[in-house]
Amino acid sequence: MNMTHPFRDADGDKLREECGVFGVIGSKDAANIAAAGLHSLQHRGQEAVGITSFSGEEFHSHRGLGHVAQVFSQRELDTLPGTMASGHVRYATTGGSGLRNVQPLFADLAAGGFSIAHNGNISNAMTLKRDLVSKGSIFQSTSDTEVIIHLVATSRYPTLLDRFVDALRMVEGAYSLICMTAEGMIACRDPLGIRPLVMGRIGDATVFASETVAFDVIGAEFIRSIEPGELVQVDHKGTISSHRPFGNPAPRPCIFEHVYFSRPDSVMDGRSVYGVRKQIGMELAKEAPAPADVVIPVPDSGVPAAIGYAQQSGIPFELGIIRSHYVGRTFIQPGDAARHADVKRKHNANRAIVEGKRIILIDDSIVRGTTSLKIVEMMRDAGAAEVHMRIASPPTEHSCFYGVDTPERSKLLAANMDIQAMADFIKADSLAFVSIDGLYRAVGEDKRNKKRPQFCDACFSGEYPTKLTDFAERFSGERNAA
Amino acid sequence: MNMTHPFRDADGDKLREECGVFGVIGSKDAANIAAAGLHSLQHRGQEAVGITSFSGEEFHSHRGLGHVAQVFSQRELDTLPGTMASGHVRYATTGGSGLRNVQPLFADLAAGGFSIAHNGNISNAMTLKRDLVSKGSIFQSTSDTEVIIHLVATSRYPTLLDRFVDALRMVEGAYSLICMTAEGMIACRDPLGIRPLVMGRIGDATVFASETVAFDVIGAEFIRSIEPGELVQVDHKGTISSHRPFGNPAPRPCIFEHVYFSRPDSVMDGRSVYGVRKQIGMELAKEAPAPADVVIPVPDSGVPAAIGYAQQSGIPFELGIIRSHYVGRTFIQPGDAARHADVKRKHNANRAIVEGKRIILIDDSIVRGTTSLKIVEMMRDAGAAEVHMRIASPPTEHSCFYGVDTPERSKLLAANMDIQAMADFIKADSLAFVSIDGLYRAVGEDKRNKKRPQFCDACFSGEYPTKLTDFAERFSGERNAA
Amino acid sequence: MNMTHPFRDADGDKLREECGVFGVIGSKDAANIAAAGLHSLQHRGQEAVGITSFSGEEFHSHRGLGHVAQVFSQRELDTLPGTMASGHVRYATTGGSGLRNVQPLFADLAAGGFSIAHNGNISNAMTLKRDLVSKGSIFQSTSDTEVIIHLVATSRYPTLLDRFVDALRMVEGAYSLICMTAEGMIACRDPLGIRPLVMGRIGDATVFASETVAFDVIGAEFIRSIEPGELVQVDHKGTISSHRPFGNPAPRPCIFEHVYFSRPDSVMDGRSVYGVRKQIGMELAKEAPAPADVVIPVPDSGVPAAIGYAQQSGIPFELGIIRSHYVGRTFIQPGDAARHADVKRKHNANRAIVEGKRIILIDDSIVRGTTSLKIVEMMRDAGAAEVHMRIASPPTEHSCFYGVDTPERSKLLAANMDIQAMADFIKADSLAFVSIDGLYRAVGEDKRNKKRPQFCDACFSGEYPTKLTDFAERFSGERNAA
Amino acid sequence: MNMTHPFRDADGDKLREECGVFGVIGSKDAANIAAAGLHSLQHRGQEAVGITSFSGEEFHSHRGLGHVAQVFSQRELDTLPGTMASGHVRYATTGGSGLRNVQPLFADLAAGGFSIAHNGNISNAMTLKRDLVSKGSIFQSTSDTEVIIHLVATSRYPTLLDRFVDALRMVEGAYSLICMTAEGMIACRDPLGIRPLVMGRIGDATVFASETVAFDVIGAEFIRSIEPGELVQVDHKGTISSHRPFGNPAPRPCIFEHVYFSRPDSVMDGRSVYGVRKQIGMELAKEAPAPADVVIPVPDSGVPAAIGYAQQSGIPFELGIIRSHYVGRTFIQPGDAARHADVKRKHNANRAIVEGKRIILIDDSIVRGTTSLKIVEMMRDAGAAEVHMRIASPPTEHSCFYGVDTPERSKLLAANMDIQAMADFIKADSLAFVSIDGLYRAVGEDKRNKKRPQFCDACFSGEYPTKLTDFAERFSGERNAA
Repeated sequence: MNMTHPFRDADGDKLREECGVFGVIGSKDAANIAAAGLHSLQHRGQEAVGITSFSGEEFHSHRGLGHVAQVFSQRELDTLPGTMASGHVRYATTGGSGLRNVQPLFADLAAGGFSIAHNGNISNAMTLKRDLVSKGSIFQSTSDTEVIIHLVATSRYPTLLDRFVDALRMVEGAYSLICMTAEGMIACRDPLGIRPLVMGRIGDATVFASETVAFDVIGAEFIRSIEPGELVQVDHKGTISSHRPFGNPAPRPCIFEHVYFSRPDSVMDGRSVYGVRKQIGMELAKEAPAPADVVIPVPDSGVPAAIGYAQQSGIPFELGIIRSHYVGRTFIQPGDAARHADVKRKHNANRAIVEGKRIILIDDSIVRGTTSLKIVEMMRDAGAAEVHMRIASPPTEHSCFYGVDTPERSKLLAANMDIQAMADFIKADSLAFVSIDGLYRAVGEDKRNKKRPQFCDACFSGEYPTKLTDFAERFSGERNAA
Repeated sequence: MNMTHPFRDADGDKLREECGVFGVIGSKDAANIAAAGLHSLQHRGQEAVGITSFSGEEFHSHRGLGHVAQVFSQRELDTLPGTMASGHVRYATTGGSGLRNVQPLFADLAAGGFSIAHNGNISNAMTLKRDLVSKGSIFQSTSDTEVIIHLVATSRYPTLLDRFVDALRMVEGAYSLICMTAEGMIACRDPLGIRPLVMGRIGDATVFASETVAFDVIGAEFIRSIEPGELVQVDHKGTISSHRPFGNPAPRPCIFEHVYFSRPDSVMDGRSVYGVRKQIGMELAKEAPAPADVVIPVPDSGVPAAIGYAQQSGIPFELGIIRSHYVGRTFIQPGDAARHADVKRKHNANRAIVEGKRIILIDDSIVRGTTSLKIVEMMRDAGAAEVHMRIASPPTEHSCFYGVDTPERSKLLAANMDIQAMADFIKADSLAFVSIDGLYRAVGEDKRNKKRPQFCDACFSGEYPTKLTDFAERFSGERNAA
Repeated sequence: MNMTHPFRDADGDKLREECGVFGVIGSKDAANIAAAGLHSLQHRGQEAVGITSFSGEEFHSHRGLGHVAQVFSQRELDTLPGTMASGHVRYATTGGSGLRNVQPLFADLAAGGFSIAHNGNISNAMTLKRDLVSKGSIFQSTSDTEVIIHLVATSRYPTLLDRFVDALRMVEGAYSLICMTAEGMIACRDPLGIRPLVMGRIGDATVFASETVAFDVIGAEFIRSIEPGELVQVDHKGTISSHRPFGNPAPRPCIFEHVYFSRPDSVMDGRSVYGVRKQIGMELAKEAPAPADVVIPVPDSGVPAAIGYAQQSGIPFELGIIRSHYVGRTFIQPGDAARHADVKRKHNANRAIVEGKRIILIDDSIVRGTTSLKIVEMMRDAGAAEVHMRIASPPTEHSCFYGVDTPERSKLLAANMDIQAMADFIKADSLAFVSIDGLYRAVGEDKRNKKRPQFCDACFSGEYPTKLTDFAERFSGERNAA
Repeated sequence: MNMTHPFRDADGDKLREECGVFGVIGSKDAANIAAAGLHSLQHRGQEAVGITSFSGEEFHSHRGLGHVAQVFSQRELDTLPGTMASGHVRYATTGGSGLRNVQPLFADLAAGGFSIAHNGNISNAMTLKRDLVSKGSIFQSTSDTEVIIHLVATSRYPTLLDRFVDALRMVEGAYSLICMTAEGMIACRDPLGIRPLVMGRIGDATVFASETVAFDVIGAEFIRSIEPGELVQVDHKGTISSHRPFGNPAPRPCIFEHVYFSRPDSVMDGRSVYGVRKQIGMELAKEAPAPADVVIPVPDSGVPAAIGYAQQSGIPFELGIIRSHYVGRTFIQPGDAARHADVKRKHNANRAIVEGKRIILIDDSIVRGTTSLKIVEMMRDAGAAEVHMRIASPPTEHSCFYGVDTPERSKLLAANMDIQAMADFIKADSLAFVSIDGLYRAVGEDKRNKKRPQFCDACFSGEYPTKLTDFAERFSGERNAA
């Protein structure tokens, strides 16, 4: 059993990506540390990876499509000398020209080399790009991140740091960034801190990562989270300085990192991700009990909540679905005879546990609903007497524009149906979601008390905490902060 | 078959492999069904895969190093036409010339084309090969399986079936075979039935596989196990005939299939593998209780026994170790600072669960002991107060010569130490193994009552059920049936 | 265009390349015609090739390292739809990031897509680039050609054609360009016409190429040369318009195209290249006779001049050196015993012709002298009684800054030695070069009569016909037009 | 100009191959020397190459599809240690399983490792194979060479040398072989010496090769030809012994090696190949003069005969056809508009020489006639006034069964038409072939005086010097020695 691999379908029209970023400055093993750190962040993006290093005189880069362990062997890492390196894992890059979009991006500016790795999404990138191109900027990628580079290149401020802050003041949306210049490393988080970013230490070196698990794996010590709106600079002597160019807006970190996106062994803003998920399962058991014989997780992402549900309800936890490790991307149907062969390649019913039983199925979320339907049917084919689906998040009714890859709203099941209709669609005997209040309880906060820390929960509530300039027409009907 | 490259493999002494076999006859989707079936058997061998098909006139073959999904896309499968196909997944093939050993093996005999896929190991292969070579046979692989082909080729019997039986009478050891000739498919299992083999049906087609999970995945119906010593022939009209060329010796199926090797969602000789493993955990809880706060499995193979242990003992089951899916084969150390980085790439402590707790760790077996040591140390680094290791099999004191890849005896921790010394070696506060009697109880049998069904448990007991001609000197001190 | 990898090439100071360009507009087979045309121009650049097509809505591109036939099969060509295509072959691109420099370059400008393929070299590229970068332009390649794109992007003129002319007015040096916009194709040649460019017709389509041989191979009709300083536009209806934005300076086409660079079956500005080379050999026979038994060409480039020398002198032409076609780039020495094995892999003495003979060796030029030395030694090892080297061009004393790849001046043998010293260096019994007057006679012109057409002969004379802004310090001692 | 690349069309149904073999024993650089030697024999086979070495204990092998320089870099050569190595270049290997047929072939026999590289063709291979398979031998390739290995493996003689001679006594046809055993190297030539084989020395090492050019390139000294029917053994101490197991039949070496197949800088049985070809051109000028302005070779193979023809006739030799070096295998038609684009990719008319002229075209042979037709049409398209084709060999009326790749008889133009009909087919104004007597005169022998040395000239005369067991039915109408 195995929890780190997000449950993703193969689909094409991804515009927004989940990503992971990592940086290290001050170690002779910089590129190797970056590769190991990115490897532990692989669940945040499996399609492409890149590392850029700085050897004191020159920047070096290697990028490729695939997993960290496919793109990087010691041979490639040996082409990345120096004591500073940063890297990026990325979800979706399709097409022959995809390599152009693989980060870190790099440019030789008049002020020197500038490298950038970005987790998040800039919600006015298209608008900014149109303006830049009209003045002569030439874009090479289709990535929103590239606008930051051109804003830096064309800024009138004298120093590279000033130009960078000048550029950030023009962008809106979510960004956790790790940048490199000849002088050192800059890590910063958008004013609301939508995407995570943490700082640690290994020996004399400073490290930054999207999640704490990266520090565990490389043997680094966790120091603290980068604050929302904070910009941290580290030079080659190890001097660290903190800046707050955006004042002190109230933070709104992404709650979906707790529900699904982060690794369960990470600690996010002081909370154990595994612990939160188990607690969500407990809240769910209280809010939505069901008479059943066994609690069965949809592996792997449903497992912690299922353990919590089982402990709270007293119903035994059992592996009623077995997941295969060996799922290839371009696999083939065995022919007409096999029903739901694609889902069976990944998940197979453990008939000995399922047959004749009333089961509670626990999953993290429902997006389009097609996978849930297949899983429920697989349970029935294996002889389940009743199937009660329980979901460890509120209904996903809204798209994310801050870097979590969700389909457009019209394809979200919860945007189109009420809960009973959803239950019918997935053919479950009953269906329930944890409430948004229950979710806040599980993380130890209170959605209704705005004096307490709040999250970005736009995917559940539609309350977007920033302007969405590029999407203004499409989403004029939705509530947002503008 | 290929005679031009019989140079020794880099790892020439790796003669024993774990493998999976699959066959289908009577379907227009034969190659696709074989690929899907092999995909579900991937856990039995991840290093190489091959499929051979028969299109009515010719045999076609594609083999490669890697996973099923890496070696086969629809493009390769389209080169394998016909209504009959068989395939093989294999554990270890290293070196540039490794492809020679990838099965199915094939030869053009005077009686026509002959293809063979083999799970198991022939324990007099070297002896037979010496004799064949002295008479002019030219071997192309270093696989033990190739002796069967040469025995068939040089047999004096008239029909291909008679030649095949003549060949099998000369070999000793473990073999589940799926062969193809122009006339149809032959599936057979050695006289003791050491390795598994099952038969099913999908539409009008007959299928054979190492495990029932392959039938689930392709949507086939399980019919029955092939009996130990049984040879089943299926022709292109679908006529099935059963032969018993070896009489009716008492079966001795491998008990390690239940402990570790098979998928938990398979049913092996009528027993749910998941159910047996959970029961082993329950026996272990009775035999070797420990005062603790949590039961933590070493994922993934320790999970079912841990669930059983937790249910029996009442101690909560928790995911104290998180496993990454993204472990590449040639990965790199992040540098000197990181302790046990290699094991951390695969397993990471979930500190929130472990810290300050007395934990019971459940794993399936201990081979060399080095991994157990690293896991225990990882638990202590994460703050575990006490670590009690519990193993869901008896001590592995003896090598397997029947197709499970185990190191030579001198490298087996249990062959060299008593249990207290082992506990000290892995730095656990306590260590216990399930007893062999407890293991038999978990599968519902009785080791001491020889009238009841017995297993091959040589890896635990040293009681080898066949001659070991090739290994006679090395193992003269061990008990075997000869 | 690609901004993310502008790290320096391993051979960053290789700024000058020989290249070939080709364009076609108005044919449904545009990409295939481009590939065939580039194939015939392969001698102008063997290291990299690219083709860009326009399908009415989008630009498509495929570029790679290697020969045309290695980079393009029908599969790649099928990804390049449309009735307009242009391509480029290029001499030297080394290192992993080399692909960035492979042309055609492309950018999405505010005014639309813009593609450019360039033969020649811009001698103020570095100076222009510094200025552009200071204003915020981000370069992705190390190619001089990219400055043209940025000049177009940042020009204040309204139309793309005006912007393009505006850009060209800022550049100095040699350029034959084939550009594409959504409106059609633009072919133009620098004011002095240093590099060649010809126009032809195949069916209803218009074609452009560096040499006429490309028209022979695709079955096109030669129309005329593009004039020095002329800019020809062709739209999708086939309308052709000619512009002269630079006035009418006196042309100075490169004479080295006749000596070495063009294919012998091309016709360059009305002169057969083969005929000119044969005539150079005749002039050489008159200027530098030698008492000898045979005339032997250094294959392949010395053959036409050797035929001319033999016909003029009456001494028999014989193949005393045999050239192998199969020279790989990374080949291996057979060991210490073999002398000059590298040159022998390419050239081998035909001992039966050489032994005991007084030979006249004809080669096209001497650059560093090391190859000439090896060839002479090879002749002596094969038993030559006397070796008289005759060179079908004047001594190469100066570097080219206009797109022919020559080493820096300090490595040119003729820049460092007089002719007798050169003869001693290459161990020839005698050495002679054709005079620059003889060379002009061979092409039918007169170097001393400036009213007659003149050439760029800077590599022989040091008389550079343009400013050399980027190289001003290095070459302040040399004569140039500035 | 460039003579070593045979003029070959791309066609599929090749059953017989031209090949080159090379061996070296006694040098620490054995594999490197073999690679360099094979590189110089590349014209004898361009599709596949292999090298096997012996390191004192083990045989090592690397084989691949492609040219020597594509298959072998220093990295591959470093995997081939030892002081003895042999290799093979091969013409045609098609299909995915082609690698099986790439030589040297190797087998582990009871008497030890045995490697074989073969130039020629065994004309009773099919018959022998049927018998071997019926007794249990398993073939892995479709190569005729493999029968020799099985004959050695199943021979009843005690020593490996005796078994080898026993095997050779059973085979008929043409073979020059280089074999390796743990004891040393064996080189031998069939009783009639149909294919060439020469011996040389480099330092203390002994070398064998198909042609002397291989010795030039590696810096070795030519010692002598292996005699027809001779078997030479060299052990690791350098001791050389010669055996004549077949008595002393009258030799019949292949005359086509002189006409076309060998490199012009090789010396074959004491005769300069270039000199013979030039002499054939002179004989042709005497036998078949034509009133013309220029003599034009079809490059490269027609060049020496064209030089001879020009010198004898006094008509000027000119390069009226230019050949491209860059012909790829899978190239693409530029579209319907281009006539004969495939031949133009390789050969292009030099219009300046051809236009308005009466030309004599010299080629080495006519096989199917389709290429000759295209060349003649290309000359006419370029404005030739008259085209007189002269061929430097007699009409090719019969297939070769001894290792030269010729199509079956029905596809040979000369087997189906008289000379006037052939001239009409290729659209030449006149056509003439050198007579077989003229050909013998050119090599200094006399076809009509059987006391003088004779050649295998079966492709011209139909007089096959051996039995053709496998082809008995097909060729019962042709004269042969049986």
